[in-house]
Amino acid sequence: MYHQVVSELIRSLKTVEIWLDKAEQHADVKRFDVGVLLTSRLAPDMHDFIYQVQSACDYVKAAPAWLSGQTPPSHEDTEQSIADLRARIRKTIDFAESVNEAQYTGASKRKVKLSWAPGKVIGGENYLLQIAVPNTYFHLAMAYAILRHNGVEVGKKDFLGPIDWVNV
Amino acid sequence: MYHQVVSELIRSLKTVEIWLDKAEQHADVKRFDVGVLLTSRLAPDMHDFIYQVQSACDYVKAAPAWLSGQTPPSHEDTEQSIADLRARIRKTIDFAESVNEAQYTGASKRKVKLSWAPGKVIGGENYLLQIAVPNTYFHLAMAYAILRHNGVEVGKKDFLGPIDWVNV
Repeated sequence: MYHQVVSELIRSLKTVEIWLDKAEQHADVKRFDVGVLLTSRLAPDMHDFIYQVQSACDYVKAAPAWLSGQTPPSHEDTEQSIADLRARIRKTIDFAESVNEAQYTGASKRKVKLSWAPGKVIGGENYLLQIAVPNTYFHLAMAYAILRHNGVEVGKKDFLGPIDWVNV
Repeated sequence: MYHQVVSELIRSLKTVEIWLDKAEQHADVKRFDVGVLLTSRLAPDMHDFIYQVQSACDYVKAAPAWLSGQTPPSHEDTEQSIADLRARIRKTIDFAESVNEAQYTGASKRKVKLSWAPGKVIGGENYLLQIAVPNTYFHLAMAYAILRHNGVEVGKKDFLGPIDWVNV
């Protein structure tokens, strides 16, 4: 299951590139600097769009790393433009896709330590389903909501991304 | 995996009851009718808080049903108050928790048909990971964002809910 679940997180992260296209188009039509969207937030004490994307990337990077016994590669939070965010997403996906199914062998027996939870560890399965999945979707959804709230024409299908339907 | 993943969706849906507590407290302190929050939305052409909770409930109900070969119980969208929403969440959880691990046997071989995708079906695993999980978190996150945007003091920990840490 580890490889499949992480693959779906990767699939979801890829949808952000479509949102970025739509954000650029919207700013262009309305003639404002797209940077305004990148630093927008839903509440003054919430993080901005750039942070939400960085954070989603961090979970999509960390899950395959910890669950395959690796330390996640370090990606500094220096993004300021759409191009920077695209590069961040791509390097995240490149790493996450580099972890093949066999490398998740024993993932359920791993204990993961997180910097924000000192003195605690969590088992591999709970880490994946209680931390990595909800956090990835939380930050993706907040990024989506910031754009949507500001008029960018993203829709639920853009959030879900391509679905492997079977035609009948 | 089916039982575990659905259990985590249930766990996440349960967190909404804490958000409702905080919404009630906020409306009380600020002296406004909590109903204002329930009909708030992030954009004029987005759905309101009540719909977001109903929709999250629907995915948490549908996944265990279809994946165990059952038709989901019908829950009408008639909720108007916090008490109504609590009842909706509870009947959703009661049903979802009634499906035990053994009932998911063969889930990966099931084909699921969805009303909004005529002429198509989807395999059990893709249904769970590409439809049920992202949609549940999408609607939960939108509900959370509506409250957060309107000043309710929910935080990320309220979104994640209880985590099965192991003390070291």
